[in-house]
Amino acid sequence: MRHGLIPELLADAAWQSGDVEVVSGQVRYTYAEAWERVVRLARSMKQIGIHKGTVVGVLDVNSHRYFELQYALGLVGAVVHTLNFRLPLADLAFTVQHARDEVLFVWDGFRPLGEALRRFVRGVVWMPEAGSAPPAAATAEAALAVAGETRPADVSEWPDYESLIQSQPAGAAPPPVELQDTDAYSVFYTTGTTGRPKGMIYRHRDMMLAPLQIAHHLAIHDTGAALRAGDTIMPLIPFFHIHGWGTPFFAPYLGNKLVLPERADAAAQLALIRAEQVTWSNMVPTQLAMLLDALADGPSPDATVAQLRLKVLTGGSPLPSGLAKRAHRAGVAFSLIYGGSDQLGAAISAVRQPMSDEALRVQSLSTTVQPLPMVRMRVCDTTGHDVPRDGATVGELWVQSPWLPSGYLDNPAASQAAYQDGWFHSGDLAVWLPDGSFQVVDRVKDAVKSGGEWIATSVVEAVLSEIPGVALAAVIPVPDERWGERPLAILQAGEDLQEETVRAHLDSAVASGVIARFWVPDRIQRVAEIPLTSAGKVHKAALRAQYTP
Amino acid sequence: MRHGLIPELLADAAWQSGDVEVVSGQVRYTYAEAWERVVRLARSMKQIGIHKGTVVGVLDVNSHRYFELQYALGLVGAVVHTLNFRLPLADLAFTVQHARDEVLFVWDGFRPLGEALRRFVRGVVWMPEAGSAPPAAATAEAALAVAGETRPADVSEWPDYESLIQSQPAGAAPPPVELQDTDAYSVFYTTGTTGRPKGMIYRHRDMMLAPLQIAHHLAIHDTGAALRAGDTIMPLIPFFHIHGWGTPFFAPYLGNKLVLPERADAAAQLALIRAEQVTWSNMVPTQLAMLLDALADGPSPDATVAQLRLKVLTGGSPLPSGLAKRAHRAGVAFSLIYGGSDQLGAAISAVRQPMSDEALRVQSLSTTVQPLPMVRMRVCDTTGHDVPRDGATVGELWVQSPWLPSGYLDNPAASQAAYQDGWFHSGDLAVWLPDGSFQVVDRVKDAVKSGGEWIATSVVEAVLSEIPGVALAAVIPVPDERWGERPLAILQAGEDLQEETVRAHLDSAVASGVIARFWVPDRIQRVAEIPLTSAGKVHKAALRAQYTP
Repeated sequence: MRHGLIPELLADAAWQSGDVEVVSGQVRYTYAEAWERVVRLARSMKQIGIHKGTVVGVLDVNSHRYFELQYALGLVGAVVHTLNFRLPLADLAFTVQHARDEVLFVWDGFRPLGEALRRFVRGVVWMPEAGSAPPAAATAEAALAVAGETRPADVSEWPDYESLIQSQPAGAAPPPVELQDTDAYSVFYTTGTTGRPKGMIYRHRDMMLAPLQIAHHLAIHDTGAALRAGDTIMPLIPFFHIHGWGTPFFAPYLGNKLVLPERADAAAQLALIRAEQVTWSNMVPTQLAMLLDALADGPSPDATVAQLRLKVLTGGSPLPSGLAKRAHRAGVAFSLIYGGSDQLGAAISAVRQPMSDEALRVQSLSTTVQPLPMVRMRVCDTTGHDVPRDGATVGELWVQSPWLPSGYLDNPAASQAAYQDGWFHSGDLAVWLPDGSFQVVDRVKDAVKSGGEWIATSVVEAVLSEIPGVALAAVIPVPDERWGERPLAILQAGEDLQEETVRAHLDSAVASGVIARFWVPDRIQRVAEIPLTSAGKVHKAALRAQYTP
Repeated sequence: MRHGLIPELLADAAWQSGDVEVVSGQVRYTYAEAWERVVRLARSMKQIGIHKGTVVGVLDVNSHRYFELQYALGLVGAVVHTLNFRLPLADLAFTVQHARDEVLFVWDGFRPLGEALRRFVRGVVWMPEAGSAPPAAATAEAALAVAGETRPADVSEWPDYESLIQSQPAGAAPPPVELQDTDAYSVFYTTGTTGRPKGMIYRHRDMMLAPLQIAHHLAIHDTGAALRAGDTIMPLIPFFHIHGWGTPFFAPYLGNKLVLPERADAAAQLALIRAEQVTWSNMVPTQLAMLLDALADGPSPDATVAQLRLKVLTGGSPLPSGLAKRAHRAGVAFSLIYGGSDQLGAAISAVRQPMSDEALRVQSLSTTVQPLPMVRMRVCDTTGHDVPRDGATVGELWVQSPWLPSGYLDNPAASQAAYQDGWFHSGDLAVWLPDGSFQVVDRVKDAVKSGGEWIATSVVEAVLSEIPGVALAAVIPVPDERWGERPLAILQAGEDLQEETVRAHLDSAVASGVIARFWVPDRIQRVAEIPLTSAGKVHKAALRAQYTP
């Protein structure tokens, strides 16, 4: 009767919290009504050949449509492919073909993207939205140019999304399907910067367990983004990022009101937070900065700061300490989450011992994480042994959890490199603290490996950034005959910057224990401008190409 | 690698919270040490013929031994039979034979009971405790007198508990066993007052899921017995009652310090609460009353009240309103739990809307419950239809959850009566409140069924108890030609009690909506003394026998 399947979460919410609201754009309904629409949508799937095992791509912002599809597809045993519309079109087309998507559900706002991808699938279900204009996006022609293999374009004219739902009677029973919690539920892809995206399949039990452990960790621990029964949840993390970090699953599980931001920009998000009394959200640090900017731009920043009272779960990239302090001042409490597409959630910041010093508490919550229940983490040196729990020795973070995938989809080489003896080798560098928590410091691929030991370039860069006159700092590895690699510091600064100033600053960082002696760059190179990527990050690949002999 | 098996909870705790303490009598160790002992104990099991599927009875108070056995037996796939030492010996012997126990683990304090039961099993492992004297208990002769079927007494002289553990090296790996989360984990029996105890088997996934949902409900909701990461947990509910309501499983899951009270009486429990800084406990209302008595008897009741700060989960019988108020005054916050052996946990009290009125909050937390996550509850009339959510209409409480057993062990008739179409017919009467919560009012077997409608005798009894001069009130059904049954009130009171006084009081209760007009007893009988059971409850069976023609 109850099998640990994703759709049971919404069915239970319809029963237990049937009058709790879901808000999305102009749509406002209850969990009970959401479940009824999901059942009707699921019953309509067989008309368009969607059955158990069919892979179905979804291209949409965080909306009630996407929320419904994540349950309706699960109800018929189809596999949800959460399409990442921020991927380069060539990569996006690759994932559609690699996952063997048969059908796409595409929001009208992404119509050009949908048109570009429809040749790879049996058909597209369009999801219109009243009064919306499609945003500028890649054209079909651009997609065709990048597409490799193509299929015959036998795409039929199918009913649109609302017509599918309306084709089924209200109050009908879910379609009968034989499913187990070990059946596939969803597939999604890494956004790795090197090579093609890598795909992973997660089962119903994985995608049930990991989000619930996130919710439980946030409910049990003393942490910034604590979850309580009365909270209103607004996921700003797109659903294509690990299903918005599990929000569409744990919001109904907790019986919490859910606000879906659709295409809201920071100002509109702020308006939603106020109008719908949102108390809990998740976002990457960049989104948090934009939200705080919007708050500062508001009509009465002083008066509104105290009204915000927002709890935020943030992650995906390191939280700059300035942003953490700024958020704290604006009334935003936060927790840090660590995880990724290829391991789901793994750890969240939590204060283990009561802390009376508020600044220390904020610092701890913004820099260190504790494993979720059921998760084990280690920091290993290059020989696979645990590093000491000294908060200083850098190693690679290894993770073990019940919801780890067995490997990447159709990619045995990458699978073998990343998943070994039940441990996921995350490719992230971290230090292990004496209290058992972890601080992620760098990506392995960005680090310098000197004499078999890792040097966390992000830590050295942070030290260098503190020097007056240094606008930007980058540390990259250069080959070294004796040590394998040694660090080179590249500083964007005026010509008056003296190397002795830099050396003195580095020496004092060594003396105070912030960095190890052998982390100090052998060479320091001043430049007028450090090249940036389109995302505004330091373009390390370009620097490596330039400075590696 | 990670299969959703009970032992994984402790293995994870040893990894995540390895330095957190378990305290039991003179024993004080960490979760890491507990896990090492559990692995050694599990490795020793094959010496005494315990393998996957072997049913093993445990007879012990809440101790570190019992804690360890609940993990070590699970680790080899044996089935834990939690023996209820408070059952009449005939019933206890019945459960040992009915469950087909092969081996018993018996604490020395229960040696006479163990001696009485050993003839039904292959062997007994004695569990000594330094400096303990066996309590007065039934003798072996008494057991033999009640035993039906007997087996040849081929009981061998096995090593005792500590010798088993010491027989295995420290640091060894757990024994290899192929287990699934759908394999049987434990068996236990109802303590029903009518007929023989009924047995139920729970799987690893049931006994993992239900306790974790209890913990999550307590972490998420605004409730008295809120669970947080820093809490110290002391289960006063014996492990034979549904594994102490799941405490040995969720304490390590949460990484909480665990205090096991062994044989502590109320004064010793109070001392443990203070010495070990216990913040969370569970107990039946009688135990709560005894604890408050001990607190009042203490050296400085005024000074100690504020120090108690105890969160208590209580259930098993209704919480008298006087006791609820008294607990609140003593600094004890509480939540009510509803459940039972044949359904595990189902619901816990929780405040849905913030309540500024503290008295209303306490009343709500002590009378109504909300379903746990994943649980559905209904109140049904005799035709199986939902009663209105009016807080007044009485019906039978039906429960559905992922961890319901498929039925009673080897008892198809009782199974068919209780488990129908996925719903457990609890035999409890309840009203359904407009906010979706439930108030349990009576047992079906104690209620009066008049004209096809239930009358909750406990509610009528509470009204009658308020009448000055009434020491005790009992309402029982008497046959009625027109209505099937009608209520008869029996009042323990002095001869000066006037029937008009009683009638006037009942009329005002009808006028204020506390009871329905048809609930008013047709006859009122004054007696000098109402017979009580050995447990101090009204002896309804004796009253029925006396007053039924």
